[in-house]
Amino acid sequence: MIIKIFAIFCITSYAKAIQPISEENEYFKINFVYAINDINVNSTNSISMDYSGLNSTTKINSNENDCKISPELSDEINKYKSEVEKIIKYVLSGDFKGKTFDLLAELTDTFGARMTGSKELESSIEWLKKKSEEENLENVHSEYFKAPHWVRNNESLYLVRPRRQKMSLLGLGSSVGTPNDGIWAEAFVVTNFQQLEDNPLKAKGKIVVYNPTWTSYSEMVKYRAHGASKAAKVGAIASLVSSVTPFSIYSPHTGWQMYDKTIHKIPTASITKEDAQMLQRFQDRGETCILHLHMGAQNFPEVTVRNLVSEVTGRDIPEEVVVVSGHLDSWDVGVGAMDDGGGSIISWLAPVILRKLELKPRRTIRTVLFSGEEQGLHGGKAYFDLHSKSNEKFQILLESDSGTFNPFGLSFSGNNEAQCLMKEVLSLFDSLNTTKLVMPMEGGPDIIFWEKAGIPTGALLNSNDDYFFYHHSEGDTMTVEDRESLDKCTAFWTALAYILGEFNVTIPR
Amino acid sequence: MIIKIFAIFCITSYAKAIQPISEENEYFKINFVYAINDINVNSTNSISMDYSGLNSTTKINSNENDCKISPELSDEINKYKSEVEKIIKYVLSGDFKGKTFDLLAELTDTFGARMTGSKELESSIEWLKKKSEEENLENVHSEYFKAPHWVRNNESLYLVRPRRQKMSLLGLGSSVGTPNDGIWAEAFVVTNFQQLEDNPLKAKGKIVVYNPTWTSYSEMVKYRAHGASKAAKVGAIASLVSSVTPFSIYSPHTGWQMYDKTIHKIPTASITKEDAQMLQRFQDRGETCILHLHMGAQNFPEVTVRNLVSEVTGRDIPEEVVVVSGHLDSWDVGVGAMDDGGGSIISWLAPVILRKLELKPRRTIRTVLFSGEEQGLHGGKAYFDLHSKSNEKFQILLESDSGTFNPFGLSFSGNNEAQCLMKEVLSLFDSLNTTKLVMPMEGGPDIIFWEKAGIPTGALLNSNDDYFFYHHSEGDTMTVEDRESLDKCTAFWTALAYILGEFNVTIPR
Repeated sequence: MIIKIFAIFCITSYAKAIQPISEENEYFKINFVYAINDINVNSTNSISMDYSGLNSTTKINSNENDCKISPELSDEINKYKSEVEKIIKYVLSGDFKGKTFDLLAELTDTFGARMTGSKELESSIEWLKKKSEEENLENVHSEYFKAPHWVRNNESLYLVRPRRQKMSLLGLGSSVGTPNDGIWAEAFVVTNFQQLEDNPLKAKGKIVVYNPTWTSYSEMVKYRAHGASKAAKVGAIASLVSSVTPFSIYSPHTGWQMYDKTIHKIPTASITKEDAQMLQRFQDRGETCILHLHMGAQNFPEVTVRNLVSEVTGRDIPEEVVVVSGHLDSWDVGVGAMDDGGGSIISWLAPVILRKLELKPRRTIRTVLFSGEEQGLHGGKAYFDLHSKSNEKFQILLESDSGTFNPFGLSFSGNNEAQCLMKEVLSLFDSLNTTKLVMPMEGGPDIIFWEKAGIPTGALLNSNDDYFFYHHSEGDTMTVEDRESLDKCTAFWTALAYILGEFNVTIPR
Repeated sequence: MIIKIFAIFCITSYAKAIQPISEENEYFKINFVYAINDINVNSTNSISMDYSGLNSTTKINSNENDCKISPELSDEINKYKSEVEKIIKYVLSGDFKGKTFDLLAELTDTFGARMTGSKELESSIEWLKKKSEEENLENVHSEYFKAPHWVRNNESLYLVRPRRQKMSLLGLGSSVGTPNDGIWAEAFVVTNFQQLEDNPLKAKGKIVVYNPTWTSYSEMVKYRAHGASKAAKVGAIASLVSSVTPFSIYSPHTGWQMYDKTIHKIPTASITKEDAQMLQRFQDRGETCILHLHMGAQNFPEVTVRNLVSEVTGRDIPEEVVVVSGHLDSWDVGVGAMDDGGGSIISWLAPVILRKLELKPRRTIRTVLFSGEEQGLHGGKAYFDLHSKSNEKFQILLESDSGTFNPFGLSFSGNNEAQCLMKEVLSLFDSLNTTKLVMPMEGGPDIIFWEKAGIPTGALLNSNDDYFFYHHSEGDTMTVEDRESLDKCTAFWTALAYILGEFNVTIPR
């Protein structure tokens, strides 16, 4: 049976879709809208994507037909066409062809996963810092801040009755561990919070298993984010959640979760949708399932981490800045090639390529590689806190954090006038097929603080329909990346940053 | 980049696609042709299937336009339309709606994986035997034979240099284990056998890693089947092979392998395509990878296992038999819902449903649930050896072992006259959309002995394009199965068996 569902995409951390509970995370409440994508999913596992529905509900500027760009501005924009083509040629078929893939592969192969608080993240930052210096980038430095430090350690889950089976799991970020010998308890499966609240006695003393039917990321992720505290509130001693993905090959997907401060903390982990469905069937047949859950997870004191900054300083108005960014930190599974190694590398390469092509725009082109994103946008918040009150003037902030698959344009937040301007700019990219402009900006979690403050922001649009197949799982590796698509992303990102840096005008706000 | 590749499908064990080495497996040399399917795969992981190319190279009977069915025979076939519709209605929208899924789920949930030699397989056979008796099936019995007995035990693989990373693996069936503390050695990656043979000194003392570019199952599976002995021949101390799948979420896929009797045995396992590609990249960059492989695998003396037989005995000519079959044994990962729980259950249900509908055809309708398939068609061979010289006359043997997704017809081996007859029979199934007839039979590994002997054989055609995503992996679970498709498979299988059992004529041979 084919059923119609909606799936949010362009989201890489729970922080981007949930209503936070704790006060410290007040800034998560920033209201931002995601692209919604029509997907056909049959009742079990198969999925077929409808490309035609991509961004179907994204609000396009209603004034797009009323755009009036002055002839002077239009002429100015059009004169950048030769630089755009020069950059595209260099990256797609010149000396730089294939180098984005190779660099991303070297990063992820050499350091693997880059969890905030890990030595791997520190080493990878140091490695890119050294490369920045070797490439003669300017103002190369780290900006330090504090972030949560959670470590998974060993973990295991067994079905022990009605039969013994090892089950895959991934503990959720910030979860407490279990006692050393684990927790042995009956499973109580629910498909939604209402079922839990309606059956508090059935949940008491049990391991609550959330088995929601996939509809969308935003609908599913609430069980991951808030499931533990909701279960603890009715007396459960642990909770498990079906992984937030429309498709699985027995693959668990981790992610951050948030305890309600008023409720005692219980261990919580993700399991595969295969196992969640199996536990549901056992329960529906009246059979009791006993689980043995062990998690060695630990929450340590906050750790000092850093964003990495490097730039080509503006030749004319260096205090005006175009930011290109991604987050270098990843989860501790897979190697974070997609989330967000790809976005980090294409952003890091923008000033590198400008330097190689001896293009030094009027404004500063600055790469910021955030950390602490997966724990709740800590690097993005720290960057905003440090720079929003400085003397710098931000022309625009760009982030790529929803995949670096085949690019097709930009999502953007800015006023009507700014939208018209960006539309004209993107028209230069017809040879790359990256001319699409949609509003608002989505897929740039670390720059939402700027968006809220009214500064123009943009994020890469790309063909990321399979994004959640790999998201926060062992499947986030170089195997999902494509050499040619990465070249296109780098070319687009670099040329876009160049034009916005060179422009005679400030993007209206 | 989109490249054109070919993929064999409808194959569930290596035995169906490789040229065997050892003499004991002489019978594997039976020459049978598979449907070839056009698939578009980009250079990394994404895959898009071309349904229009399904079975594109399968030889359709060239005489199909010359089919001359006698009016009498055509009339007879058409008179079964009401029984066909009765069966379809009962299974798709009557009392039996959804029961195939429920029974398959109960089988796989209750017993899990059903490896030949395991108590789980024995228990599941006993469970279905009891159910056969409860359903008043006739001639319910087991037929015993010997099969290899291989046990995986604990196994692990680590990259220990240039960095430490736990890697997923699945030891290959019949592999020897490693010493207790494992094997520590450098990896030597090759993409084909020629590279190995050209570089014997580089392989000596190493763990050879096969990283072929996916083209088709038949091309890839030779590295799994013969990789160990080829590597041992040039002095390697173990071998690893990229999993035989076009798509992966860091999922290893197991399967049987065969040692060359003249070469000493070395341990061998499958790894994920993600890790095989990573090891390749390390090597291409000139970096040395050290691996630590531990496998506790053991080969025990042959074990006595059994095929399970049950039937509705023919009311008129009981010695003439229509066989409907699948193999109940599975690999020891996942739960074998697809390979081949689904085929087993729809075959087991055919006589059950006939009984419930009080349809007792002239010939015997016999379910055979084979065992020992994954180790090399041992149950199929035993059945042929026992029955091919008996007084029984086999009208046709049907097997379903290439998935029970949405069915669309039958692959068939038989002479031209038989093909014409089958074409006419399938025309009764327009309401189910299972009217397609392709030649030769494919997806019926246990009945190829009969095919070779000139007896008509058929296998279920179904929309199994994703088959190898899950094949022999932890992903082979109920989650890939679809309730409605299973109903359609059961209805088709039952009604087809009924007609072929009731027929006034013997299928020509």
